[in-house]
Amino acid sequence: MKLQNIRIVLVSPIYGGNVGAVCRAMKNMGLRDLAIAAPRDDTDWAEARKIATHADDVLTARRLFPRLEDAIADCGLVFGTTARPGLYREHARTPREWTPRILRAAADTPVALVFGPEDRGLSNEELTPCDHFIRIPSSPEYPSLNLAQSVMIIAYELFVAAGIFVPPVERSPEANSEYRERMFAMWERALRAIGFMDAEKSAHMMLGLRRVFARAPLTKADVRIFMGVARQTLWMAERYREAHGAPPEAPARAGED
Amino acid sequence: MKLQNIRIVLVSPIYGGNVGAVCRAMKNMGLRDLAIAAPRDDTDWAEARKIATHADDVLTARRLFPRLEDAIADCGLVFGTTARPGLYREHARTPREWTPRILRAAADTPVALVFGPEDRGLSNEELTPCDHFIRIPSSPEYPSLNLAQSVMIIAYELFVAAGIFVPPVERSPEANSEYRERMFAMWERALRAIGFMDAEKSAHMMLGLRRVFARAPLTKADVRIFMGVARQTLWMAERYREAHGAPPEAPARAGED
Repeated sequence: MKLQNIRIVLVSPIYGGNVGAVCRAMKNMGLRDLAIAAPRDDTDWAEARKIATHADDVLTARRLFPRLEDAIADCGLVFGTTARPGLYREHARTPREWTPRILRAAADTPVALVFGPEDRGLSNEELTPCDHFIRIPSSPEYPSLNLAQSVMIIAYELFVAAGIFVPPVERSPEANSEYRERMFAMWERALRAIGFMDAEKSAHMMLGLRRVFARAPLTKADVRIFMGVARQTLWMAERYREAHGAPPEAPARAGED
Repeated sequence: MKLQNIRIVLVSPIYGGNVGAVCRAMKNMGLRDLAIAAPRDDTDWAEARKIATHADDVLTARRLFPRLEDAIADCGLVFGTTARPGLYREHARTPREWTPRILRAAADTPVALVFGPEDRGLSNEELTPCDHFIRIPSSPEYPSLNLAQSVMIIAYELFVAAGIFVPPVERSPEANSEYRERMFAMWERALRAIGFMDAEKSAHMMLGLRRVFARAPLTKADVRIFMGVARQTLWMAERYREAHGAPPEAPARAGED
């Protein structure tokens, strides 16, 4: 599985909570390989564990490396993330542009995605061993994302592109024309029986109703519900006719609130 | 601007830190309208402000509503987010599938994106006034995303689709064939002058070099650098010839480490 070859590398992260949130984002998106380069002495690992919640296994399996070079040494492709402009940083592309390249490489080799510390991001020196730069699209009014949010967006793009997630599918098939026409015929009878419209206006009104129903797919189950409504309405109108000896008059104000 | 019409609605969020992280994610992605429905009494607003950092203006402008219905009353379209299966939840689609529908509606009307509390998500009752459901793709091993991460992914999809972000562009145009051929000719001369390859093998070796250079676009600036390398190499080889009275021999081991 390609995602197993993708390594998240955090350079000198400051807040344990962010490391924990990175672990959760990784596990949410099917990533497992976390490396921390040039770790600080004062990282709050207890806080990291608390925030990681059910991704504590990713946190436990983290590997620490004294230098960035050590964390990426075995990787065939290395990406640095940057939000700032500057030397060669205009070569950065978006996560969605890089995703196919990352997944293609990850079929054969470990691929590193490198993230800088919360307060300054990656330095020019830390970007030097990176083959390519990733820039997450963001508003010029506040372009700087939280560390774990940056990891999440890139991990999410990879997870979606890897095609692992199979969205749930509607099980009821679309109703065919013959079935829908039976529904419209029942509605026309019912709406006339309750005096909602008279014969003269019914063709026009039914066109309006058809337009509403045509806006989106109708399943057999949907059509069955609306047929039931018409059937019950016809039954009610019949009771009215029995009680009053005549059907209700066509109303003067059909369609108003 | 379409994004101005998009409202993030948090139902009874528990942790102030998450509300702050939501504010930051919103501002990162150009959203400003935050509503909190059925707020709790014990939300830690100081923590929210700390985590929001430069998005404290979004936090300050938040609006509180006693019930979800009040927070979405003026919205033409309402989306509920859900990670769980269940009654009608299989109708959920991914953020990327819904994005065009959301942006189209937001041109004319406020659109609400509703998120449940951290511990339980939206209840069936809270999903009832939602026109559609959004399900973020995630790993079956750990499908439940942090609240602010969920907001970020949906906001990011909208921001990208809105086409506001203009990625930086390489300013140097691609080198044309005539310029690249001058570079290859200089390299061939230089590699023969230093004895890297003899005349017999040079055609084959130059094809290999051409393949490397053809793997990606070469700008004029790139070609200029490699021409400079060849020029300096030729200069060095000329100094060698002056000192030794003859060019270096073709090596036995060209291409080895």
